[in-house]
Amino acid sequence: MAKCIDRGVFSLEVPVGIEGYASVVGDKEGKGPLGDCFDKVIEDSHFGMETWEKAESRFLFEAVRTAVKKTGFSPDDIGAVCAGDLINQCTGSTYGLREMGIPFLGIYGACSTMAEGILLTSLMIASGALRRAAAATSSHFSTAERQFRFPLSYGGQRTPTSQWTCTASGAVILSENAAVCSISGGCIGRITDMDVNDINNMGSAMAPAAAETIRRYLAATGTSPEDYDCIVTGDLGAVGSTLVKELLKNEGYDISAQHLDCGVMIFDSDEQDVNCGGSGCGCSASVLCGYFLPKLESGELHNILFAATGALMSPMTLQQGETIPAISHLVHLVSRA
Amino acid sequence: MAKCIDRGVFSLEVPVGIEGYASVVGDKEGKGPLGDCFDKVIEDSHFGMETWEKAESRFLFEAVRTAVKKTGFSPDDIGAVCAGDLINQCTGSTYGLREMGIPFLGIYGACSTMAEGILLTSLMIASGALRRAAAATSSHFSTAERQFRFPLSYGGQRTPTSQWTCTASGAVILSENAAVCSISGGCIGRITDMDVNDINNMGSAMAPAAAETIRRYLAATGTSPEDYDCIVTGDLGAVGSTLVKELLKNEGYDISAQHLDCGVMIFDSDEQDVNCGGSGCGCSASVLCGYFLPKLESGELHNILFAATGALMSPMTLQQGETIPAISHLVHLVSRA
Repeated sequence: MAKCIDRGVFSLEVPVGIEGYASVVGDKEGKGPLGDCFDKVIEDSHFGMETWEKAESRFLFEAVRTAVKKTGFSPDDIGAVCAGDLINQCTGSTYGLREMGIPFLGIYGACSTMAEGILLTSLMIASGALRRAAAATSSHFSTAERQFRFPLSYGGQRTPTSQWTCTASGAVILSENAAVCSISGGCIGRITDMDVNDINNMGSAMAPAAAETIRRYLAATGTSPEDYDCIVTGDLGAVGSTLVKELLKNEGYDISAQHLDCGVMIFDSDEQDVNCGGSGCGCSASVLCGYFLPKLESGELHNILFAATGALMSPMTLQQGETIPAISHLVHLVSRA
Repeated sequence: MAKCIDRGVFSLEVPVGIEGYASVVGDKEGKGPLGDCFDKVIEDSHFGMETWEKAESRFLFEAVRTAVKKTGFSPDDIGAVCAGDLINQCTGSTYGLREMGIPFLGIYGACSTMAEGILLTSLMIASGALRRAAAATSSHFSTAERQFRFPLSYGGQRTPTSQWTCTASGAVILSENAAVCSISGGCIGRITDMDVNDINNMGSAMAPAAAETIRRYLAATGTSPEDYDCIVTGDLGAVGSTLVKELLKNEGYDISAQHLDCGVMIFDSDEQDVNCGGSGCGCSASVLCGYFLPKLESGELHNILFAATGALMSPMTLQQGETIPAISHLVHLVSRA
C-alpha cells in the first residue's frame, strides 16, 4: 500500500520497485561522456527503418524488449506498460509497442514521462491490480526537430539556450521484487507557468516546475537535500540547472551539492555542439537506466530523487501567443544493496 | 486494495468510485437526442475564446470546475487529475487545467481517454496514495478536423463511414466515497491492429479493440453479457457497433441485447448529418457523465461495463503507410443506490 503524505505526495509502505532496466541510445549519445553506460548504442539514426518516426518506435521497442529480457521474463509476464513520447499522438510508443501485446496505458508528460510512468506503475502495483509492469519512453532528435522547430534540411541556426533532443529510449520493469531499488515515495507535479515563451529556452520554462516539485517533496517528507546522495533533474540543461538551484535556494533549500541534471550529463557541451545540453523524453530515461540505476543496484548510490521535467506546450499554442507550461514528477529511489 | 484477476484485469475490493461528475457540450450535441442530459450546453463553438484550441481548453476546465463544485469541494481538495485529449501534445488538457493547481498526470488514449483516466485514478486511490482524484477529457470538432483531416474552410466531403468529432468534455471526481457508483473492476486494453488504414473509418479500426477488451473482462470474471444492464462502447459509431457485436458473437458472446454506443447515442444520424455518429474523447466522456452516471446514481441502472475506444494513429503515421492501431479500456461501474 501507499500512504498519502500531502496533496499529490505519497510514500510506499510495501516494497515496490525496479526489477530491471535498459537503455538504447543513438550515435551522438554513445559518443558522449556516458557512452559506456548504455545497453545499446545504435549508430544508424534510422535504426534500419524508412522514417525517423519508425526509428523512434524501434528504439522504444528495443529498450522494452531488452529490459524484459534482462529480468528473465517474457512480454507475456508484464501486466501493463505505461509509455509515451513527444511525437504527435504519442505514436512513437503505440507503434513501438503494438506487436508486443502488453496491456498499454498511453501517457503524456513531455520530458517528464519517465518519472510519470514510474509513479503510475508503482502505484498500480501497490494497489494490487498488477504484479509486474513496465514504464518506458523515447525521443529522437530528428522527429522532434521537424515537429517542434524546423525541418532538418532547412539548417536553422540554434540559439545559445537551446538543447539537443536526445535520440534515446529507456525502459524499466517494476514489481514487488525490487531487486535494483525500491520506490520509496513520489510527488505528482503541478503545472507551473512563469510566462516563458521561447521554444529554444526550455530549461527556463521547466526549472520552476522542478523547483516546485522538489520543494513539495522535501517539505512533505520533512527531509533536507543532505538526506539524499543525488537530486537529479530531468533535462533542464545548463541554464535551467542554474535556475533550479537559485529558485530552491530562495525557498531555503540548497541543493547545489546534490544536484545533477541528465541534460547536462549526457553530452560534452564543449565538444559536442549541443549548447545547453540534452533534452527529450529519452534523455532522462536513458540516463536513469544507463547511469543511476546501475549505481543504485550496486549500492554505490543509496538514495536519490529523480525529478524528470517536461514542457507541455505545442508549436501551435506558441503560435497562438501562449506561454510554456511545465511539469515535473518526482520519484524517490532507494538502493536495496 | 485491488486484486489482479488476469493479466491487465483487476477487481476493486475496497469501495472506490465516482463521487461527482459533469458534462459540458457544444451546440450540435445540445440539439441531439441527449441534449437535456448535459450540465451545460455552450452555443458558441469558440466559448468566448480567440481560437478553437483555447475553446477546447475552456470546455475541459468548465467540466472539471463544475464536477468539483457539484461535489461541494474545491480544486484544492483534489489530490490529482488524469486528463488528456486529441490535440497535439494534449494541450487541450494542460492549458485547460493550468490555472487550477491540481497535481496533473497527462494521459493519451485517444477516444479511450475517459476509461483510461478512471482506471488510473481508481487504482491510485485504491493504493492509498490519494484520497480524491479527477479524470477528465475533451474534444472539439474544429480542432480535430483541422488537425486530423482538412481545414474546415476547405469544405471537404465527408465519407459515409466517417464520424463527427463531438465538441464536448466530461469530468468525474473519484474517491473512497463512491456516492454515485463504485468501480468494481477494470480491464487495461491491448493495442489491436487489423490493418484498417482509412482515417474516415475509425469504427472499423476500433471495433476489434473493444471486442478484445470486453471478451477479456467477461472471460476473466467468468461473467456473461446478461450479467450487465448495459455494455457501453466509446464511440464506435454505426459501422463499428455492428462489427463489435459480430466479432464478439464469433467468440461466443452475444451482447446485442446489452450493447449501446456513445457515438450512436449522442446524435440523431438521420437529422444531424453526422454519417456514422459521434466520436472524439469528449463523446464517451460526456455521454457517460450526462446519461449513464445519473442513471447509476438513481439506481435506474445497476451494473454497466463502460469500454471507451481510441484510435492511436496520427496523420503522419498514415502518410508513412501505416495502419491504425486501436485500444479500448474498460471499467465496470456498479450503482450504490
